[in-house]
This record gives sequence, structure tokens and C-alpha cells, in this order.
Amino acid sequence: MISAIVDHVGIAVKSLSEQGQLYKLLGLTLDYEEIHPSEGVKIAFYGKGIGRVELLEPIEGSNAIAKFLESHGEGLHHVAISVEDLDKVLEDCGKEGKEVVGDIRLGAGGRRVAFLHPKSAGGVLLELVEVDST
Amino acid sequence: MISAIVDHVGIAVKSLSEQGQLYKLLGLTLDYEEIHPSEGVKIAFYGKGIGRVELLEPIEGSNAIAKFLESHGEGLHHVAISVEDLDKVLEDCGKEGKEVVGDIRLGAGGRRVAFLHPKSAGGVLLELVEVDST
Repeated sequence: MISAIVDHVGIAVKSLSEQGQLYKLLGLTLDYEEIHPSEGVKIAFYGKGIGRVELLEPIEGSNAIAKFLESHGEGLHHVAISVEDLDKVLEDCGKEGKEVVGDIRLGAGGRRVAFLHPKSAGGVLLELVEVDST
Repeated sequence: MISAIVDHVGIAVKSLSEQGQLYKLLGLTLDYEEIHPSEGVKIAFYGKGIGRVELLEPIEGSNAIAKFLESHGEGLHHVAISVEDLDKVLEDCGKEGKEVVGDIRLGAGGRRVAFLHPKSAGGVLLELVEVDST
């Protein structure tokens, strides 16, 4: 049994390497970098375990992160909360009238994720990440 | 020696109790509530240890959270990163030309904190929280 907590914070950036310098300065180490062609982004995770920082840089023009940068500039994009049973949480959210964005998909690190729409979550794009409870 | 990580995510809300319901639904438990008269906010921490969610509700009109709500609506306000030696990190940030907002102050839970301006941190208001490394 895990307690749900902040798995990571997603930050939209123009350059992984440029903003990565700041997090290194603050003492976080680069965990890994990954390219997600289907999402049109490359990502870098700083820190280890829970409470990491995910930087997201668009690799081509027509994706969610590129659009976010165009309209908001660099900044906080989403917060990811760990959950033990994603299907059950989504069922509970559905009963409460919460709007889920798209379907369950495989996110960074190959984990099952889903997103709650900001209008259902106090203005926050909330990623729900299923983590192994064993 | 700790590794710097996300201590908490600060979310500006109109109502602690209303948005708190969502985080309870996701499996987080209320850690504690606190009123900070000097900042003009009441706060609620959800989750335990690192990677918590901090909800911030203004208690009167002329403070940073009230202004944030007026201009942005509810949403992500800041990310707090744990650091072991706040003075040393601020010195390092100063050498890199990073802008610190105000002075070191006592934040939630009586810990020493400082803020990096979003223009020095990729659009993110970054709270640096000094944590006990022992």
C-alpha cells in the first residue's frame, strides 16, 4: 500500500540543457532523458524516486508542450500524483463528475498514466501515475 | 546529506475545503492546516514527508495569493525544492545571476525558505526550503 504523493512536477521549457543547469545548481542530479515521438517531446528527469522534476521540451511544432510555450511561455505544466490503482481512482473521479483528458496511456518510464482536466482540478493539469505498490 | 527534491507543490485555491476534497479522493491525507497572518493565507498540506501538495487560500484581499487568483485563477503557484544549505545555494545562485525574491524567511512548518524569481527559473516561482539533513 502506498500513500498517494507528488511523483513529479512537469515544467515546459524551451531548452532541456539550459533549464537543466538550474536544477543541477540546486543539487538535483539528472536521472534520465527520454524522447517521446508520439507526444512530440523530449524529457529530462531530475532527482531520484518521488518528488522529481520533469523538464519537457517540444521536438516539433504541433504538440501540447509547443502550444503551451506559445500561449504561456516557459513554466509549470502539470503535477503528477502517484496512485496505486489507476482504474479505481478514475472510476471514483468519474462518479464525482471529474473530466479525464483522453484515455489511459503509457507515460514516462512506461508507467500507466491518465490526466484530469484543469477545470476538474482547481486549474491544475493533474497527471495520475500508477505506481507499483509492492 | 540529502538530495534536493520536490518538497511540495503550492496550488492557489479559492477554498481549501473544496479543493481538498479532490486530493482526498486521490488518496492523499490531510497532514495539517496553518494560518500565516503575515502572508495573508491559510494553507493545508496533503500527503506526508516529501512530495506533498500545499493548498493556499487567501484570507484577505491584498496578498500574493489573492493577486494570483485575480490574474490567473486557481492553479499552480510555486514548486518547493529541498536544499541542505540555503545560504550556500543562494550564494551559488547569486554568482549565476539568479534573482532572489525578498529575503530568507520562515515558511510553512517554521522552515527557512527563499524564493527564486520566475524569470530566473524558467517561468517557475521556485521556493527553496532548507531541510534538516541529519
